[in-house]
Amino acid sequence: MSHKQVVIIGGGFGGLTAAQSLRGANVVLIDRTNHHLFQPLLYQVATSALSPGDIAWPLRTIFRRHPHVRVVMDEVVSIDRAARHVRLRNSRPITFDVLIVAPGSRHSYFGHDAWEESAPGLKTLADAVYLREKMLLAFEEAERRRMATGTGERLTFVIVGGGPTGVELAGSLAEIGRKAMGPDFPNLRLDDLNIMLVEGGARVLPGFSPDLSAKAAAVLERKGVTVKLNSLVSEIRADGLMIGGEFIRSTHIVWAAGNRASPLLTSLGLPQDGSGRIKVQPDLTIPEDPWVFVIGDAAHCADPQGSPLPGIAPVAVQQGRYVARLIREGADTGKRRPFVYTDRGMLATIGRAQAVAQIGLLRLSGLSAWLLWCVVHVFLLIEFRSRVRVMSEWIWYYLTFKPGARIIYMKTRQASEEAERRGRAPQGLTRSTDVISKDNIEKRAT
Amino acid sequence: MSHKQVVIIGGGFGGLTAAQSLRGANVVLIDRTNHHLFQPLLYQVATSALSPGDIAWPLRTIFRRHPHVRVVMDEVVSIDRAARHVRLRNSRPITFDVLIVAPGSRHSYFGHDAWEESAPGLKTLADAVYLREKMLLAFEEAERRRMATGTGERLTFVIVGGGPTGVELAGSLAEIGRKAMGPDFPNLRLDDLNIMLVEGGARVLPGFSPDLSAKAAAVLERKGVTVKLNSLVSEIRADGLMIGGEFIRSTHIVWAAGNRASPLLTSLGLPQDGSGRIKVQPDLTIPEDPWVFVIGDAAHCADPQGSPLPGIAPVAVQQGRYVARLIREGADTGKRRPFVYTDRGMLATIGRAQAVAQIGLLRLSGLSAWLLWCVVHVFLLIEFRSRVRVMSEWIWYYLTFKPGARIIYMKTRQASEEAERRGRAPQGLTRSTDVISKDNIEKRAT
Repeated sequence: MSHKQVVIIGGGFGGLTAAQSLRGANVVLIDRTNHHLFQPLLYQVATSALSPGDIAWPLRTIFRRHPHVRVVMDEVVSIDRAARHVRLRNSRPITFDVLIVAPGSRHSYFGHDAWEESAPGLKTLADAVYLREKMLLAFEEAERRRMATGTGERLTFVIVGGGPTGVELAGSLAEIGRKAMGPDFPNLRLDDLNIMLVEGGARVLPGFSPDLSAKAAAVLERKGVTVKLNSLVSEIRADGLMIGGEFIRSTHIVWAAGNRASPLLTSLGLPQDGSGRIKVQPDLTIPEDPWVFVIGDAAHCADPQGSPLPGIAPVAVQQGRYVARLIREGADTGKRRPFVYTDRGMLATIGRAQAVAQIGLLRLSGLSAWLLWCVVHVFLLIEFRSRVRVMSEWIWYYLTFKPGARIIYMKTRQASEEAERRGRAPQGLTRSTDVISKDNIEKRAT
Repeated sequence: MSHKQVVIIGGGFGGLTAAQSLRGANVVLIDRTNHHLFQPLLYQVATSALSPGDIAWPLRTIFRRHPHVRVVMDEVVSIDRAARHVRLRNSRPITFDVLIVAPGSRHSYFGHDAWEESAPGLKTLADAVYLREKMLLAFEEAERRRMATGTGERLTFVIVGGGPTGVELAGSLAEIGRKAMGPDFPNLRLDDLNIMLVEGGARVLPGFSPDLSAKAAAVLERKGVTVKLNSLVSEIRADGLMIGGEFIRSTHIVWAAGNRASPLLTSLGLPQDGSGRIKVQPDLTIPEDPWVFVIGDAAHCADPQGSPLPGIAPVAVQQGRYVARLIREGADTGKRRPFVYTDRGMLATIGRAQAVAQIGLLRLSGLSAWLLWCVVHVFLLIEFRSRVRVMSEWIWYYLTFKPGARIIYMKTRQASEEAERRGRAPQGLTRSTDVISKDNIEKRAT
């Protein structure tokens, strides 16, 4: 197949693995960003345990030694199967003989897109930096209010969604708040901090076994997180949210509830499931097109029981490798063995020295699971330097609770620009609530 | 003095040193950001050699073990000398017995503030990240254009101002472009990159001796930077700038030409020099007020020859220490020895393994000066972890030319937000020129 052109849409786990496994072929890897993001650690950037540069690598650097891979930073606006090319926003169409569609997913608000302004999600580095600064500014504001008045309402963070992201966010937020932020904010008492994890279903971490879900919830409660189960969010506003009949005041809501596959997929004109994923064949192709593959969270790939595989990195990586092999072998549809996902287990941290692990019949929780989690994740990280850095960050953080990444700069810039606009001293920070609303103006403007 | 309240405005080198030297006193340190920034390395963030977290430290973390220092993240809007308090944007006024004014400076466009949109400066972390992403997107766009058309105009970066910042920016930009970016962008030829350093005076690094200025210019030229001396900028527009009679097309202009002390100083109602600095007494106080000090770039402090001391970190640090001693001793104005600046020398890098150093009569250039520069700067960095990190970054970078910080995320977010707004795929990057103009809209909006 080396003479044919393989186009890969998306530099996530699936697309990246496919490109790396397609030695010899002529590959074009298209991504709207210039980096591969190690998404499983994104929540650590959001809680300022790691810096953006620790979990992202420029795609061009990764493929510098792979002359067969051409990297294009651009947006794919549509896929034309008849013309066998993809249309890009800023460049000419790129034709393909083989196409791997791995654009990933965004968070979904189940039709309530207006909620995003008050309850941002966590998918990209920009999302993480945005959440980090929002959280840090909330602490600064609470400290100021306390200093001025001696009182002030509790600082309430609400995380919507009890999956791994929600649990990991709630857990490390509780730690940063209670252990790291505590000593730095003399006017804040620990019980000023109120962290709530809201899950619509009957338990957190639904992908795990019920006993591990219960353990995770118990650990969160011990860390001071209020876990609300069977609680559906009916409305989210700038000043709070409705859960069941109850209104909870909070200007710090994080959305970790739902995903929706990239809108790009609709241009394939094929049946999609409720999350917008393409229903793929056993060999991850689309119907009647043996050389167009859909992988990762964009694919609805049924497991032997008929339920779709989860949108997690290991699935995407294995699918990327599988598809690369088919392409290298050039096997006809008839001769292809279907994709089978090898479940090496699932891991989720609940913060410092606490995690749950489910490997086949083995169930781990607590420190052992956390150590396993650390080892697995550190060694999954692509670049050696970063591996060392992340490891040293973690050890340092574990020993000292001093997140090196706890800096605010984007919002301070907005504030000072705004100050300059108003002809005031450029030395300025506006109330975090202002900053948030300004950020919304900015969203509309940009 | 320990019973008196010392208020410090600004957590830069001067304010930070003063706070650290005022053990025992009751200190309030006010800064609009939550971190101390190691500004001498800011250009390395702008050229993606270092990450923001490597050169910034949360003030609260720095003073966690100093209970006598209270950190307030807020903007000082004015100083009321009669009422002996400073007014803050978000909190109640804070009264002072002793005041140290160290708000620093911003870049100044000599009355042409409109130029900032097309020629941003480099003072804050947000500025640096903004420049970094602008530069990286410029390379991506040039690569796309080349891929599409096979041709394309040269990528022209213009840096206005031949001081240390301008020289350091031009030098490391030339390296990133020619050595690091080169191999990653197969469609770009090295001579597509055109870097211009524009200086109004007769030589670069005017603070250094003429021979070192000449050496620096020669090194820059060797690196492929066009050095234009005696060249005054008469206009800057979105598509380029006028230098003398000549119009140079460039959408990538950086302003490193002038500084202006913080506008806050005007609220002191005292004589200021052309750069807005307060003309201070020999003991760094303001006239008729022995317990209000102005230090750092905000102070016009005459050296024995009568010319003002440069706005560099060593001056600010020594002034911070001097002022702290006066406060601890509580000496009356009459009994105070005037501030004397001990010049330990000046250093400027011109990129990898190239620097100039002037220490007393000693003149160094090339590798020896660069090694000296590395040692001095790494050991000036406050936190041990960061010191190790910065050192390892540098060694890694020196060996591999792989800037770990070369990631774009803020602008990609703007683009995808904009895409969502237009109801398009959230997977999107708009032309960097669009992004820039959007960024300008954003400036107006925020």
